[in-house]
Amino acid sequence: MKITIIGLGLIGGSIALALRKAGLATTVYGIDKNESHAAQAIELGLVDQIVYENNSFLSADLIIVSIPVSATSAFLPHILDSIGENTVVIDTGSTKDLICQTVSHHPRRSQYVAAHPIAGTEFSGPGAAFLGLFDGKTNIICEREKSSEKALLLAFRVFETLKMKTIFMDSVEHDKHVAYVSHLSHVSSFLLGQTVLDIEKDEKNIFDLAGSGFASTVRLAKSSPDMWAPIFKQNAEYLSQALAEYIMHLQKFQYHLMKRDEKELHQIMTKANDIKRVLKS
Amino acid sequence: MKITIIGLGLIGGSIALALRKAGLATTVYGIDKNESHAAQAIELGLVDQIVYENNSFLSADLIIVSIPVSATSAFLPHILDSIGENTVVIDTGSTKDLICQTVSHHPRRSQYVAAHPIAGTEFSGPGAAFLGLFDGKTNIICEREKSSEKALLLAFRVFETLKMKTIFMDSVEHDKHVAYVSHLSHVSSFLLGQTVLDIEKDEKNIFDLAGSGFASTVRLAKSSPDMWAPIFKQNAEYLSQALAEYIMHLQKFQYHLMKRDEKELHQIMTKANDIKRVLKS
Repeated sequence: MKITIIGLGLIGGSIALALRKAGLATTVYGIDKNESHAAQAIELGLVDQIVYENNSFLSADLIIVSIPVSATSAFLPHILDSIGENTVVIDTGSTKDLICQTVSHHPRRSQYVAAHPIAGTEFSGPGAAFLGLFDGKTNIICEREKSSEKALLLAFRVFETLKMKTIFMDSVEHDKHVAYVSHLSHVSSFLLGQTVLDIEKDEKNIFDLAGSGFASTVRLAKSSPDMWAPIFKQNAEYLSQALAEYIMHLQKFQYHLMKRDEKELHQIMTKANDIKRVLKS
Repeated sequence: MKITIIGLGLIGGSIALALRKAGLATTVYGIDKNESHAAQAIELGLVDQIVYENNSFLSADLIIVSIPVSATSAFLPHILDSIGENTVVIDTGSTKDLICQTVSHHPRRSQYVAAHPIAGTEFSGPGAAFLGLFDGKTNIICEREKSSEKALLLAFRVFETLKMKTIFMDSVEHDKHVAYVSHLSHVSSFLLGQTVLDIEKDEKNIFDLAGSGFASTVRLAKSSPDMWAPIFKQNAEYLSQALAEYIMHLQKFQYHLMKRDEKELHQIMTKANDIKRVLKS
């Protein structure tokens, strides 16, 4: 199977590694507008060959789009314009509603599968790609009914090869849920990092006093702004709701803190402890 | 050396394990007001013998106090009242100013060392204790000048045995810094957990959509309210400042988000990326 991967970063690169290893891909073509990333992807053996623009689209069996969501919503219609009648296109973006809307009435909509494999690290670029990134994680497919059976079957093969469990969701529901469970975590982490950096001008102190708790909470603040700024913009509506709710909880906590109301603080934390029930580790 | 450990949880229990293994302790006596914790500490081999109240204080070479900071500030004067003239007392609380104040004019102040070994996990109780918890971490000693040379030398031996690097700080500076670098992380995590729990009534969805990023950011929300409520209360002044700053940053971010100002969001995240420079991993 000829596979073209657009975007050779953490996600695209890790998919390439897994599909090559499983023998699903006979040839993997790579596209990346960042030339040094493209060169690195060849060096690291993520892809067989770098191609330019759409000269590989027509003959590809599968095209995987793993670029910032703003680029996906801009280019996806153009990609669908250029594919062959047997090509299947899958995107992996962290937002789904706007992307789905941009190709909603495209004549080749049925050849496209809107996916969101939920996996990642705080690192980015081809050098961050690794085998096993997706193992045991959840993949979401939106607007399942708009994809052809053939396209869905190929997508299932891909995500099974990545050892992912696929679930189905409405694209609006998807965006709303990930606003809380993924995007809000990133915002809280970015701004925790900024708050501490702002205060601690003497950075030596941060380093000395930072326990493993701080490191874990602030880990996502290392994530790529190029990837996250477009996600936040596309999911501004729901993320803003989530943020408003988060800020409200923080302000209530601060109020009880200023009143030194230990009992109330204890109750809030005891409720939050409930997160144990819904997280494995 | 006869060592009495008051509070046989994650911290006290892990110290007991390390001091026994290194042969620093000939006998370790344990005190815990929670009887099942006391029994568990014996079962797990953390301590040799459970004792009650202060009947071991007079003859102890070293007393380690690892209980919630509210209990430490309440009982520390009483502990110093009851010790022998060669006994050294070290506390391990996450706040230092109020604790230091409560014994500031105590006749045995010089036998006490105010410490904060910065280590922990989201788990608590004797079952959470493990060997190696403190390896390579930082320990802070406050009001060094108020402890005798003899007391300091013993404290250095203890923290070297735990493989910690000790630094010295003013107790007010300590509380201010840990408000940002440790306590704020915990608050942000507790309330992130609560926000997501509040919204996601269907908990199955949280579980499915939660990636490793969410798990890492919300990990501290599993921490013990019994331990953290007193810390937050004692550090309310500085933690409230830190929270105000954090909330301000979140609100600014939300404002740019609502305006869909991707450039501004990108800039904020790029600044926050700077946290890479000050964190090892």
